[in-house]
Amino acid sequence: MINKQIILKERPVGFPNETTWSLESNVIPDLNEGEVLIQHHYISLDPAMRGWMNDSKSYIAPVAIDEVMRSGSIGKVIKSNNHPSFKVGDCVTGWGGVQQFVITDGNGWFKVDDSIAPMPMFIGTLGMPGMTAYFGITEVGKIKEGDIVLVSGAAGAVGSVVGQVAKIKGCTVIGIAGGKEKCDYLLNELGFDAAIDYKSENIYEALKEKCPKGVDVYFDNVGGEILNAALTKLRMHARIVICGAISQYNNKIAVKGPSNYLSLLVNRATMQGMVVMDYAKDYKKAAQDMGMWIAQGKLKSKEDVYNGIENFQETFARLFNGDKKGKLVLKVIED
Amino acid sequence: MINKQIILKERPVGFPNETTWSLESNVIPDLNEGEVLIQHHYISLDPAMRGWMNDSKSYIAPVAIDEVMRSGSIGKVIKSNNHPSFKVGDCVTGWGGVQQFVITDGNGWFKVDDSIAPMPMFIGTLGMPGMTAYFGITEVGKIKEGDIVLVSGAAGAVGSVVGQVAKIKGCTVIGIAGGKEKCDYLLNELGFDAAIDYKSENIYEALKEKCPKGVDVYFDNVGGEILNAALTKLRMHARIVICGAISQYNNKIAVKGPSNYLSLLVNRATMQGMVVMDYAKDYKKAAQDMGMWIAQGKLKSKEDVYNGIENFQETFARLFNGDKKGKLVLKVIED
Repeated sequence: MINKQIILKERPVGFPNETTWSLESNVIPDLNEGEVLIQHHYISLDPAMRGWMNDSKSYIAPVAIDEVMRSGSIGKVIKSNNHPSFKVGDCVTGWGGVQQFVITDGNGWFKVDDSIAPMPMFIGTLGMPGMTAYFGITEVGKIKEGDIVLVSGAAGAVGSVVGQVAKIKGCTVIGIAGGKEKCDYLLNELGFDAAIDYKSENIYEALKEKCPKGVDVYFDNVGGEILNAALTKLRMHARIVICGAISQYNNKIAVKGPSNYLSLLVNRATMQGMVVMDYAKDYKKAAQDMGMWIAQGKLKSKEDVYNGIENFQETFARLFNGDKKGKLVLKVIED
Repeated sequence: MINKQIILKERPVGFPNETTWSLESNVIPDLNEGEVLIQHHYISLDPAMRGWMNDSKSYIAPVAIDEVMRSGSIGKVIKSNNHPSFKVGDCVTGWGGVQQFVITDGNGWFKVDDSIAPMPMFIGTLGMPGMTAYFGITEVGKIKEGDIVLVSGAAGAVGSVVGQVAKIKGCTVIGIAGGKEKCDYLLNELGFDAAIDYKSENIYEALKEKCPKGVDVYFDNVGGEILNAALTKLRMHARIVICGAISQYNNKIAVKGPSNYLSLLVNRATMQGMVVMDYAKDYKKAAQDMGMWIAQGKLKSKEDVYNGIENFQETFARLFNGDKKGKLVLKVIED
């Protein structure tokens, strides 16, 4: 049996191009004792993947050259060599990488019930992006009823959940997204209180108008000038959650630092970074909350599914050019 | 009786110059019922004064044009018109401004016992700079025994106390200061574990050598490139205390933002601003701790006293050109 795999061939400077990865077809080896063979149905595409391609100290080792590109994934066990807990037919999610099949001893993989939700949701709102949003806004953002919450990347996999969880918790929520369609989505489908289109509005003017009282929490997915603008709107004891900096990931020059950071001093405010893996012991509780909110219609989950492992590079680019709606997913199982 | 006063005449762009302030001599008016007349002995000179001169939103209103320049001060009550708690001869400290005398109803003023410590110490280690250091490193920095603490402006009024309190609490302390003399002072007199001379050493190389395990707490008085370098050395869950940014206060261009701020994400670290006034209810406890440490010889306090209100501008400049040792104080009482 043949496994199509996306292999990292060189570290990109700036945006990845056609020499960054190669698509290879390799024969699947036999299973060792205690291993399972998983057939991937869907691959999770996330902005963090760009960071894993750089050879620099981070919260996780970089993907090695000639290694399968790292990613979250979901699929079904199709063969087991006496695995102690997974059996053929189980739906499982883990860090399978961008390939059609993966062999694993199960370490880091979780069984999920794909009869209660479609598979892509388990790598979206019920997976890492959803967990990031949930713990970021509650544990790091420390939201409480009545807070004014600003979130960037608000129509994305993380941002859309951040805003909705904040609404569920009784906050006023302002979302920043690119384009009228996304802003309409925030207002009309997700129930945000206000939306800012950073592509057509001046961000400083828009914040003045839409956050006249300032913000208690700013959840940052983008960095750059939007972070800098948000710093000018902090209320006393405000919290900034640093979740990512998608505007800076493909920089060829140095990251732009937030020159308004002294607003932290003036407002006795806090800027704190987070990595979702730190909250692993509480994922179950979060998944229960989120599953309940989805069932009650309070939390909407949107996945944007593309098809075919051979389209990986083109689909990956959508993470950064904004041409996607909600959680970006690549279907790699062949019909 | 004549009161010599330093009056703010215009808002400086960049560094203050001879047209920024004027020295005026004014007759002291009569006291209203319940007021006291205080004769200042010493004026406190602090970097924060530069910020109060800008017409921008901050934690305190800017000094108005044609108003006495704001500052901390200490002196003695020489006249009272039935003040309920202060009497002639009391030594008192407050926000008297850069002038030889001040009339007040006592609001915001505190009586101190100048028989137990020299007056300049009450506006230094036992005053605002000392309180800033104490609460900044314990409450915001949350130091615990064994932590590695890095402090900039380490030979200054705040930094020298930060480092010594951290040593008292069982931390390893590395100080950053300008020049061999200040670094020798940190090592030989204050007992710091290591010192970095930012004027003669490359800060990135020096941090690599002197903080090989990284830092748990960075206490920042300076901002700019030193803050940026410190961000590269954070340990997991590190805390950065933003106390000031002396390198940026006289900028004619925008403040330089810390481009390495994504280290907060990688290391799940926190950057938090502080303003000492927030801790007013606990000043007494802090003063007791610090007074005890001074008496025990564990905490050294150094004041650099200049003479004459007419030398205010030249003395003020020493805050920023580094030409001072410890807490900068101006004696304004005439012998």
